[in-house]
Amino acid sequence: MAAHPYYPRSIVLAGFSPQLWSMPAILGVFSVAVFVVVGGTLLLSSGNKRLTALDRATLAWWIATGLIHLVIEGSYAIAPTFYQTTSANFLHDLWKEYSKGDSRYATRDSFIVSMETVTAFAWGPGSFLVAYALATDAPYRHAAQLLVSLGQLYGDVLYFGTCYLEGFVHSDPGWLYFYGYFVFMNAIWIVVPSLLIGQSWQAISAAFASLKPAKVRSKRA
Amino acid sequence: MAAHPYYPRSIVLAGFSPQLWSMPAILGVFSVAVFVVVGGTLLLSSGNKRLTALDRATLAWWIATGLIHLVIEGSYAIAPTFYQTTSANFLHDLWKEYSKGDSRYATRDSFIVSMETVTAFAWGPGSFLVAYALATDAPYRHAAQLLVSLGQLYGDVLYFGTCYLEGFVHSDPGWLYFYGYFVFMNAIWIVVPSLLIGQSWQAISAAFASLKPAKVRSKRA
Repeated sequence: MAAHPYYPRSIVLAGFSPQLWSMPAILGVFSVAVFVVVGGTLLLSSGNKRLTALDRATLAWWIATGLIHLVIEGSYAIAPTFYQTTSANFLHDLWKEYSKGDSRYATRDSFIVSMETVTAFAWGPGSFLVAYALATDAPYRHAAQLLVSLGQLYGDVLYFGTCYLEGFVHSDPGWLYFYGYFVFMNAIWIVVPSLLIGQSWQAISAAFASLKPAKVRSKRA
Repeated sequence: MAAHPYYPRSIVLAGFSPQLWSMPAILGVFSVAVFVVVGGTLLLSSGNKRLTALDRATLAWWIATGLIHLVIEGSYAIAPTFYQTTSANFLHDLWKEYSKGDSRYATRDSFIVSMETVTAFAWGPGSFLVAYALATDAPYRHAAQLLVSLGQLYGDVLYFGTCYLEGFVHSDPGWLYFYGYFVFMNAIWIVVPSLLIGQSWQAISAAFASLKPAKVRSKRA
């Protein structure tokens, strides 16, 4: 059995098998995939004249985040023993790499598994529903965006909160692992969902506010 | 040091002090308090002719759940060592009693503490905001109700999910503790928030749907 690279060093991982994809290869494939999805969405949506530039950027967010939830986090949720994989499975190796930033993925911490399962199979399809609603101007667009964004935000707050309470012991202290993987990659899902919650809160409030004078008018008529 | 009553029996709780309030006294005071808050809200809101019976029941829910979050769960979030209290503090003894249904409260499991802190200080005041919005027919009523209800629901799903993954080892197997405290008391926050999410989703969708013909009409005019 090979020695694992995770922190705290005392963790025991029976059957650990070292990753075969290198860190630059994993980050490279991930970055290119995100670039293709975001670029492709921006390009393909340019024909829809009803969508503003902000709408198209938001659409790209929902498709990218939905794919990350369903494919990457989904692979984690259904593969409990990714760290034992001996072949060069890209998704398993991605999780072997990410676990350097948070070993709770490898040790299958019960909160991580619960939160990732909900994220993969509720917020994943939910993200595609929001994307569809945005593209088709469905009346439930902002209700769906509010729900999925809060799900992402709350899961992430609990993610950081549990790590804080446990003393941040689960990360390799290296800059890339702590600040790059653990802080930065997760901070994205604090910032963007917060902005989208603000957007939907305002849109919903404005919709109800604009209905009120209409009601008053119809009563007077 | 007294022996604690919690499961699994192997838990070590330094400085545990037995509860002084009896189980019937704790459940009695809690039930009377809920009855007074719900009954009082229904009574006081009867003068508001704009509120339907369902609105008034929903208002009572938000005030009761807000008080439970802020007072009861808030007392847990700020008192890490409730199980060491030697005097007859009602809230500390309530948590000593509830811990029989889930010992993770006494052992300060990092997920429980994170989730209860957010529940007490975000969903608690948030519940009062929803109550205020409902009573005043504020345009953000359904946005707020959607957010706070999903916060309650998701926290509760993770609550059950983590316990399932850990094999339900944290509860006294007695009927009252497992089904009464652990299952029933938490199931309430699965059922009611789900219903209110459905209500707000429909209301928001209807609001946006009714705005669309208005837009079309204004363009034609």
